[in-house]
Amino acid sequence: MTFESYSEPRVKRINDFLDSNLLKFRGSVSQRFAPLISAMQYSLEGGGKRLRPLMVVAAAECLGLPIDDVLPAACAIEYIHTYSLVHDDLPALDDDDTRRGKPSNHKKFGEAVAILAGDALLTEAFGLMHQLTENKRFNALNILNATELLSTFAGVRGMVGGQLLDVTSGNLNYSLPEVEFIHIHKTGAMILASVLMPARLIGAEEPRIKNLRRYGEAVGLAFQISDDILDSEATLRYSRGPRKKPKPSYTQVMSPAEMKQKLNSLIDNATQALAEEGQKAEPLVAIAEFIRTRRH
Amino acid sequence: MTFESYSEPRVKRINDFLDSNLLKFRGSVSQRFAPLISAMQYSLEGGGKRLRPLMVVAAAECLGLPIDDVLPAACAIEYIHTYSLVHDDLPALDDDDTRRGKPSNHKKFGEAVAILAGDALLTEAFGLMHQLTENKRFNALNILNATELLSTFAGVRGMVGGQLLDVTSGNLNYSLPEVEFIHIHKTGAMILASVLMPARLIGAEEPRIKNLRRYGEAVGLAFQISDDILDSEATLRYSRGPRKKPKPSYTQVMSPAEMKQKLNSLIDNATQALAEEGQKAEPLVAIAEFIRTRRH
Repeated sequence: MTFESYSEPRVKRINDFLDSNLLKFRGSVSQRFAPLISAMQYSLEGGGKRLRPLMVVAAAECLGLPIDDVLPAACAIEYIHTYSLVHDDLPALDDDDTRRGKPSNHKKFGEAVAILAGDALLTEAFGLMHQLTENKRFNALNILNATELLSTFAGVRGMVGGQLLDVTSGNLNYSLPEVEFIHIHKTGAMILASVLMPARLIGAEEPRIKNLRRYGEAVGLAFQISDDILDSEATLRYSRGPRKKPKPSYTQVMSPAEMKQKLNSLIDNATQALAEEGQKAEPLVAIAEFIRTRRH
Repeated sequence: MTFESYSEPRVKRINDFLDSNLLKFRGSVSQRFAPLISAMQYSLEGGGKRLRPLMVVAAAECLGLPIDDVLPAACAIEYIHTYSLVHDDLPALDDDDTRRGKPSNHKKFGEAVAILAGDALLTEAFGLMHQLTENKRFNALNILNATELLSTFAGVRGMVGGQLLDVTSGNLNYSLPEVEFIHIHKTGAMILASVLMPARLIGAEEPRIKNLRRYGEAVGLAFQISDDILDSEATLRYSRGPRKKPKPSYTQVMSPAEMKQKLNSLIDNATQALAEEGQKAEPLVAIAEFIRTRRH
């Protein structure tokens, strides 16, 4: 199984779900809210890799769940990821004018609309989770636990906490543990949430969750290291535009060779964590191998 | 029953719950997140009237529910209300330097932290809802429905949608229906959510919900009119500081006498909506009467 052969049809289903859901939503509300929905849609359609929803889908397949069953949760995570990019790009935070080769949300719609579009994406993500109640496979308490997972990993102890440390760290003399702590929260938390989401939705037993957690923690950190490697090679910067503010990064605490070694060891760790899961874990393994070798 | 005698002990319980909950939260997470929690706390403790959580509590009493049972939901609503004030005060939105006589969040902590503190309050609000699962009185599906209520009324079709219209309306030649549409969403939605929350939590029947909805819609709009009346009398402006950006307001479409007449008629409508509910509705009626006559 290659990452491309796995991901292409599934990213299409994720995008179709996102599109049809937003279309239905647009049709169900007053036309006066159309500009807000357009600003949300602009960033949702920004051409992302859909890595997080893809991880939700792959983790579902690992547990023997049909893909369609977890799409509302996968898209809730993509909403939250998208809001974080919109707010992250704001002048008061990273001050990025472009995102994936297009003007960032506030450059396109203005700061006020970008702030509110981010707020709306975050708020509606929790509404998306309610769609899971229509699926008889998931009991209500498990859906509530999955909703709490989303809040916890997106909140103070997760992504927003990591964002704050990223923004307020103030100097560039980080230690390795500091850089890692920030990355585990800012980037790792929502990746781990994606991997754990299907298990939480079916109320999986602890040993199963333990393997997925080990995998999710490893790929979460590995993804950020691969990002920092690409960043240092200026590959990513090209599509993002020049970085105006210095950020904590592995490049400040490790040599390129050390970063690659750490990346490899994390990916090895991630795939080993799923050894007991057998063939059903192949999609998750393919995603981990993609992170090991990605060039974009 | 006067508003003061009703509200004082209950606002104390709401504040105690908010305080102890935040203290517990602070103790349960890494100290590195303390600055983010402090920024959240600064605005949560801003000396608000706690009108929305008070309405949750009063609506609970109307349904015969113990106050303590709905406190997590009441405080989730206060978190969302607080985040909306923090983001609303930002330079890109209302650009307010003060809030309730204190520096606004971004003036105290900087814009980046204020944006993230708002995001954190919104995210953690949905985590607060999960505390309701510890209460055997509420079944999980009803809690999920109450969580969806929060998302819907805080989201595009509710508060954020109203905020967007408020911010982007761009001119001051509003018609009465336009001003009302904005107010119903920007302010009314979260007040209505507060009134409906306990009914949703117990899965109340439609006739009951209908009365509460009629009450909630009327007081939601009445509250905004009373705000606009106080604003036009410069009473509120004193505590908020001068308004830098013109906003849609009833003052632009009605004379002071018309506004007072509309306020009275909405409060009459609200109290009549609860006629069938008898004595248990007294707290909600007291809150409506407070809105009719409030001077702050």
